[in-house]
Amino acid sequence: MKKNGLDGAIVTTPLEVFFFSGFHQDRTNLLITGKEVFAFLPKMFLEHFRETAPYIETAVYENIHHDTVAKIRSLKLRKVVFDPETETYTQGKFWLSQGLKERSGLVQSLRLIKEGEELENVRKACRIAAKTFGLIKPRIKAGVTEREIALEMEYMMQKMGASAKSFELIVAFGPNSALPHHETSARKLKKNEAVLLDFGCVYGRYCSDITRTFFYGKPDAEFLKVYGIVDKAQKAGVKCAKAGLPAVEVDKVCRDYIAERGYGQYFTHGTGHGVGLQIHEEPYLNTRTKSVLKTGMTVTVEPGVYLYGKFGVRIEDTVRITGSGAEVLTR
Amino acid sequence: MKKNGLDGAIVTTPLEVFFFSGFHQDRTNLLITGKEVFAFLPKMFLEHFRETAPYIETAVYENIHHDTVAKIRSLKLRKVVFDPETETYTQGKFWLSQGLKERSGLVQSLRLIKEGEELENVRKACRIAAKTFGLIKPRIKAGVTEREIALEMEYMMQKMGASAKSFELIVAFGPNSALPHHETSARKLKKNEAVLLDFGCVYGRYCSDITRTFFYGKPDAEFLKVYGIVDKAQKAGVKCAKAGLPAVEVDKVCRDYIAERGYGQYFTHGTGHGVGLQIHEEPYLNTRTKSVLKTGMTVTVEPGVYLYGKFGVRIEDTVRITGSGAEVLTR
Repeated sequence: MKKNGLDGAIVTTPLEVFFFSGFHQDRTNLLITGKEVFAFLPKMFLEHFRETAPYIETAVYENIHHDTVAKIRSLKLRKVVFDPETETYTQGKFWLSQGLKERSGLVQSLRLIKEGEELENVRKACRIAAKTFGLIKPRIKAGVTEREIALEMEYMMQKMGASAKSFELIVAFGPNSALPHHETSARKLKKNEAVLLDFGCVYGRYCSDITRTFFYGKPDAEFLKVYGIVDKAQKAGVKCAKAGLPAVEVDKVCRDYIAERGYGQYFTHGTGHGVGLQIHEEPYLNTRTKSVLKTGMTVTVEPGVYLYGKFGVRIEDTVRITGSGAEVLTR
Repeated sequence: MKKNGLDGAIVTTPLEVFFFSGFHQDRTNLLITGKEVFAFLPKMFLEHFRETAPYIETAVYENIHHDTVAKIRSLKLRKVVFDPETETYTQGKFWLSQGLKERSGLVQSLRLIKEGEELENVRKACRIAAKTFGLIKPRIKAGVTEREIALEMEYMMQKMGASAKSFELIVAFGPNSALPHHETSARKLKKNEAVLLDFGCVYGRYCSDITRTFFYGKPDAEFLKVYGIVDKAQKAGVKCAKAGLPAVEVDKVCRDYIAERGYGQYFTHGTGHGVGLQIHEEPYLNTRTKSVLKTGMTVTVEPGVYLYGKFGVRIEDTVRITGSGAEVLTR
């Protein structure tokens, strides 16, 4: 707070309330000052919240936002901020009318670096996902549907301790693999088709993200060529990533590798994104990002080439940035 | 548009983009005029979107929001609105700076009534959830953990065609049942404990929500008494609900029934909420709501009594409002 010249900040999104309290629920506001944290919550959550975060002072609200403002006044806090990127327009107008100020990304900046228990949770989520690929691959055979495979993967991940999938799993057979955000369907796998699996799980509320592509049957020359290019591009991206490097450089290494081999126009998305409490979060690794990689960030590296009507190849790992390079966690 | 005196509206949330297009993805804007719908989307979604919604005119954006504004100008639309309840403060300020106006709840009002395919999806999601209770109950025995039961239920629902659970399932044994939003844990069931299951699934992107409470073993007099009160309160709530009734009345019927029997202070939440594309949406059935029930709304009725440290009882059905009453869908 001091470093930012602030007397306090309010936190209202369930994920960010969880980040500070370990309590994940909507309709809860936190007021964080330089000294203390106050929680405003509905009566139904009171006992549960106190058990989870005994160090936070709690108050059952009559009107959550008005009560938060009343506390700010009673503490005589002058410069208290809200995040205009997470509050709705209506809510932001209310905070401004009550004397609060805008400040974006304050909590997000604290979430960039994963340490201690956070990192352990990301690691565990990544290990579970990587193991799942080894277990599911032998079960992917002609006649199974995309949905059957997705369901088995989800079940496996939860059997290994994950609380949920980290997003709607993408299982794409044949030409479906050329749709980067294909919706898993009832389509059956045929002999001699590409298989793309983009999946991940949540462990201790932290996410993992991994993509594997392979060919079921005998791959043709074009698949082998494209696979080789994406694989080398992905490895080059992982190899160059380290603390201090602008994130845009990782994107450039992957993009240039693919473009120089004639497939640039078929790589239609960014190279990666941060992974943490959210499956997609800062920093982004794309052509527009201003972020610089730092030790402790966990990000994906996931170039792809999509030949519409034929097949797509994407290879993705979640990695941890360190001073000397990137440690692959999805292994 | 005409009825609302508008030339157009923009839609930006994935769920509401889905509501109009059948395409569920972030980073997509729709501009809806009295005559046409335009979609602004990233290149990677283009083919997929066109397959899903061939009747919508598509444009790949350079800058999604600026391109949307440029289209509004080129069409000479004067009064175009955004929803200040779904846009962030930052984004709302941008729209206002570009001449758009605030109008809240425009799309939400269209989502209140479930008809045709929407209703069929809610029905199916409810049937799957109700069936799941019958299948899981005999498997709930001393020694199983809450998490094991939650995972099996989720698996069952997806085996029956659901795409996902509609929220983090609540499986609560013993005193955990007294926490209305208990987080499913590794706790094992013991003989002679309450079991509370609050769950639901998603089918065709529409949700269901159901809660069942029972006693594993031989219930004591207090459980039987409380169960009887909640059960009768819930049935009274369902019985009174019909088109034309203020939603607050359903809450009052349940709340009064419980209060008159001395447990009013232990019913710590509202009586229900709308169920649709979101698991919690308008209309809410609580002490503060101004909503009036209408034919085609699908809402929950879910009173509860929570005795902290002992047990809780909640009974919930998703029902469809009609002119003559409420049809229970979770059966």
